[in-house]
Amino acid sequence: MDTPARLAHPMTRKRVVIIGGGFGGMTAARCLRDVDVILIDRTNHHVFQPLLYQVATASLSPVDIAWPLRTVFRSQPNVRIVMDEVLSIDRTAHVVHLRHSTPLTFDTLIVTPGSRHAYFGHNEWESFAPGLKTMGDAVELRKRILLAFEEAERQRADTGTQSRLNFVIVGGGPTGVELAGALLDLGRKTMGPDYPHLRMEDLSITLVEARSRILSELDPKLSVKALAALRRMGVTVKLNTSVIAVRTGGVMLDDEWIPSTNVLWAAGTKASPLLRTLRVDQDLCGRIKVQPDLTIPQDPWIFVIGDAAHCLDRNGTPLPGIAPVAISEGRYVATLINEDLPPAHRLPFTYHGCGRLVTIGWAQAAAQLGPFHTSGRIAWSLWYVVHIFFLIGIRQPVRVICKWVWDYLTCKPGARLLFEQHVVEDKTALNDQADEPITEDRTPVRRAA
Amino acid sequence: MDTPARLAHPMTRKRVVIIGGGFGGMTAARCLRDVDVILIDRTNHHVFQPLLYQVATASLSPVDIAWPLRTVFRSQPNVRIVMDEVLSIDRTAHVVHLRHSTPLTFDTLIVTPGSRHAYFGHNEWESFAPGLKTMGDAVELRKRILLAFEEAERQRADTGTQSRLNFVIVGGGPTGVELAGALLDLGRKTMGPDYPHLRMEDLSITLVEARSRILSELDPKLSVKALAALRRMGVTVKLNTSVIAVRTGGVMLDDEWIPSTNVLWAAGTKASPLLRTLRVDQDLCGRIKVQPDLTIPQDPWIFVIGDAAHCLDRNGTPLPGIAPVAISEGRYVATLINEDLPPAHRLPFTYHGCGRLVTIGWAQAAAQLGPFHTSGRIAWSLWYVVHIFFLIGIRQPVRVICKWVWDYLTCKPGARLLFEQHVVEDKTALNDQADEPITEDRTPVRRAA
Repeated sequence: MDTPARLAHPMTRKRVVIIGGGFGGMTAARCLRDVDVILIDRTNHHVFQPLLYQVATASLSPVDIAWPLRTVFRSQPNVRIVMDEVLSIDRTAHVVHLRHSTPLTFDTLIVTPGSRHAYFGHNEWESFAPGLKTMGDAVELRKRILLAFEEAERQRADTGTQSRLNFVIVGGGPTGVELAGALLDLGRKTMGPDYPHLRMEDLSITLVEARSRILSELDPKLSVKALAALRRMGVTVKLNTSVIAVRTGGVMLDDEWIPSTNVLWAAGTKASPLLRTLRVDQDLCGRIKVQPDLTIPQDPWIFVIGDAAHCLDRNGTPLPGIAPVAISEGRYVATLINEDLPPAHRLPFTYHGCGRLVTIGWAQAAAQLGPFHTSGRIAWSLWYVVHIFFLIGIRQPVRVICKWVWDYLTCKPGARLLFEQHVVEDKTALNDQADEPITEDRTPVRRAA
Repeated sequence: MDTPARLAHPMTRKRVVIIGGGFGGMTAARCLRDVDVILIDRTNHHVFQPLLYQVATASLSPVDIAWPLRTVFRSQPNVRIVMDEVLSIDRTAHVVHLRHSTPLTFDTLIVTPGSRHAYFGHNEWESFAPGLKTMGDAVELRKRILLAFEEAERQRADTGTQSRLNFVIVGGGPTGVELAGALLDLGRKTMGPDYPHLRMEDLSITLVEARSRILSELDPKLSVKALAALRRMGVTVKLNTSVIAVRTGGVMLDDEWIPSTNVLWAAGTKASPLLRTLRVDQDLCGRIKVQPDLTIPQDPWIFVIGDAAHCLDRNGTPLPGIAPVAISEGRYVATLINEDLPPAHRLPFTYHGCGRLVTIGWAQAAAQLGPFHTSGRIAWSLWYVVHIFFLIGIRQPVRVICKWVWDYLTCKPGARLLFEQHVVEDKTALNDQADEPITEDRTPVRRAA
């Protein structure tokens, strides 16, 4: 296939279409100069994804970590925001087809539509075990978690029997570990003062991981420390364990049934199905195998970045789908476009990783910054410093900092709002689940040290 | 019917059940001493209702004006929160029946379940013309309003033709007037910088009122001033006009059809259907005709307060369903209960009105404080002072004040977040409405002075 002719005329500016307003897309749009940018997103906001779990566990509010894209690009008149869904990409004609708007032609395309969780061929599990990739997910998860606490409190008050406040988190990566710690924290802060009938013994958190260790992207020693910290806090961690089925009333693991109406999915990743319409090589997760300059084969002006790209580092392992990688890729691509560099003059993309940081719970975290590894309170402080630093890049982080400091000083839980009026009625199903098989793993969660 | 025997024993404390965590219920719960209080609400939060319209028009976030009831009553161990829906009240047996929990007995009951909008026998209109009474309503309304702006921007960008960003607000009371002003303000702040294709001419706001004047609770002179202010701002106000029908594509008025996919309902009030289960006299709006001590006939320990009560002032006119009345009633009832006053010793409830305040738009408001009437910028400043004062009563208002000051200084719009990932898909219906009859009233909205 020949490289399609570029549409730019001497008198008109090039048009760069960006699909996705995540870290990669937003960074690229911010760095682009002297071109017309059209940024397409299904939602109207950019989300600071690394803190989504804090919205899901009600310690931050949506407004704390999301910014309307139109506000972000107010002072950049060359950027036009289109809130729409991209249906397909015609790479030969250089056209993007949208659900509502008329098709858009482009000179240059940056594809960064993000990813969803992978249910390994069992998409029907999603309704029982929602994931956490978007603000919509986080608000839905928060609703389920808060309703579970309310339901358990009601049950305790009515019957006096121990409630089944069982949370099962599938996936021992950063999201799973952070959710487990934050859930425990939510329990620790609210049981007693807010839910007088509930005890920490009522709360059981099980983290299921198919591999032999959690946080497998980190150094094995940090995995061991994180595992020890989680178990010390009272989380039941099941390694080398696969999920066989997820149903209304619980999860079937390799060898046992865990009753739970609160299964959270944080396993696997599946790139956006939109990428298939590019008709180029994809990896098993559906990511595009990009060239060293992040383009697709045979089109030097179609870039794929973020967790939609399968991009190898110097050691030949794929780069992780995290914010710093996407930001770095966005900057790199914007530079190529700004300088209008032909393929022969491009240096390959390299990622200078600034490390990995994962919170495990209150005053517990794991940090791996090159050769420097640490855990516990130092890593936890580092986590806050780094995230505040990143937030500064987007907008004044005063709001989030105040919130965190306030939480630290008062130990009070945060933004626990359920918006829907009839929200209680959604829970009728819960009362019908008492007859689900209970083969038991009710490891009580001890009060966090 | 005899007065039922009170359940209290010398050794146990009296149990006061409160239905509804609005202004009346929350105030009563806060003031009650030496009794066990059970506060039942369908949601988990108290809402500062007078500012709901600012959430609906995206200038405040839900978290700014809502507080989890469990957090509010953290330091009051005699108050237990139950998140549930009350199905019926058995006034003879002194039992409250709930949807999920076991029935609750009470010694004293405070009924304050609030109200919904009245569709005058046409409940089918609600889906096309949502009202604004709860946080759920406000979030839904905000979604619709923001999507309408997005849709209009897309239409302008695609076709270049003038968009139909027509909002019709039914009801010229405070809610309707405040919504009209805030919508205009949202347009003024976002057209141009955020929606580069939209012009103020695209925005048309029509306020429909069946009576001969808007804000009919206020002095006629203030109504006239408010009407003039609204019209000067560019709102089309239709007095003496009734709604005949509301359909997907618009509103049929007495004599014309207004095409609109954004009809907001702010007319009439209908008390909670729960009140019927009390089996006592109700007025036309379904409110309970209470005794001078706010009890129902023949039971001195069942109180009805807030906008569920039809309570007459000294002139024999019913008190309005506003926050100050509910707060005052909550305090009065709590005093009767705290002092365990038998009916013969009770002074009748009197409301010392502190006046009425309504914002009309940017630097425009109407204020009526006893004999003192004012409008314009003075009333507008007064509105802010009074609302900050009320917010202090609930929680530190720093967040809201900062937000307002910031908005004032920057003229930037606020919390415009759409949470749902697939939110764009909801709008497919909008594209099918082009063939609705258009009999025209496209009065363009002029840029606010």
